Amino acid sequence: MTCVRHTLSTRSKVQFISITQQVAATVAQSGVQEGICIVFVPHTTAGVTINENADPDVIADITKEISKIIPFEDHYTHSEGNSAAHIKSSLFGSSLTLVVQSGRLLLGTWQTIYFSEFDGPRTRNFHVKVLSE
Amino acid sequence: MTCVRHTLSTRSKVQFISITQQVAATVAQSGVQEGICIVFVPHTTAGVTINENADPDVIADITKEISKIIPFEDHYTHSEGNSAAHIKSSLFGSSLTLVVQSGRLLLGTWQTIYFSEFDGPRTRNFHVKVLSE
Amino acid sequence: MTCVRHTLSTRSKVQFISITQQVAATVAQSGVQEGICIVFVPHTTAGVTINENADPDVIADITKEISKIIPFEDHYTHSEGNSAAHIKSSLFGSSLTLVVQSGRLLLGTWQTIYFSEFDGPRTRNFHVKVLSE
Repeated sequence: MTCVRHTLSTRSKVQFISITQQVAATVAQSGVQEGICIVFVPHTTAGVTINENADPDVIADITKEISKIIPFEDHYTHSEGNSAAHIKSSLFGSSLTLVVQSGRLLLGTWQTIYFSEFDGPRTRNFHVKVLSE
Repeated sequence: MTCVRHTLSTRSKVQFISITQQVAATVAQSGVQEGICIVFVPHTTAGVTINENADPDVIADITKEISKIIPFEDHYTHSEGNSAAHIKSSLFGSSLTLVVQSGRLLLGTWQTIYFSEFDGPRTRNFHVKVLSE
Repeated sequence: MTCVRHTLSTRSKVQFISITQQVAATVAQSGVQEGICIVFVPHTTAGVTINENADPDVIADITKEISKIIPFEDHYTHSEGNSAAHIKSSLFGSSLTLVVQSGRLLLGTWQTIYFSEFDGPRTRNFHVKVLSE
């Protein structure tokens, strides 16, 4: 029954924002003890990924390196000028499937769920669906 | 109960073909009102992704840029000559998890589901599984 | 009910290890006939992917090429020196959603599930969750 839409505002062109708290809150609110949780991003220039949050340098390195691999400008044809963001969105992915165990998200010690903005700043949404087994 | 196998023919080496209609039809046919939908590609040189379909230049830019990042020829060892396709398949991914809400796929305004051919032309399959909550 | 944690040891810095047998065993043990199966990796410098296992050259080519695309050293800031592994982890992904049909994993002829080590050698875990429809 539980599918909650969350909204957030991004502030940079490329930005990784932790949404672990919002996802965990939706899981808690659902009352599901054993099941799965889907995080779905309904945009084509943003995505969702899991990575480390202990050292902010990790996210800084990811941010820098992916724009080296997929440059902002590279003789793209798309007139909006955000083709790099579309490519990053497909490579990082639009959805995540997570495990819910004993009423909580099963995440590794260093894992954080990041909303991944590739064409900000913008107002964005993501959906969290919790399914009981 | 619903897991439907769809077949399609690709016409180019690298091609993104919208399969949103087929996936939506399987969801409608399943009768599931609230749940999730898995799209699974059983190949190792093809995948599935979500991206924009409003401007065909987006797909053209993605197609061109990914073959620049992962070149068709780069001193690969695999004798079939399609290592680039295998790499693209792993980076784009073989499965998608989508949300079903009020009997319909929950997709953003600009989102289209693309079967992603990286070693065509070929006859290909994909599976659509719908799960009720 | 079934969510099983598996452990494995990796031996190289970058290594793709087939875990299809362990995943299939958990599916069999669950008794689920029709449903889905989630493979989740709780690390931020490893992931999970599907690719070919018929010719080992495919995995050799993937291993070599991804470290060309995302170099081990590239003026990263993160002091642990494994930023490349974090980036690969996000691009390959931390989870897979698979279909269970007639009590078995639905996989293509050439598909193998690979635990993807990007910062080994280490002792690693992955979780397999099976959900009945």
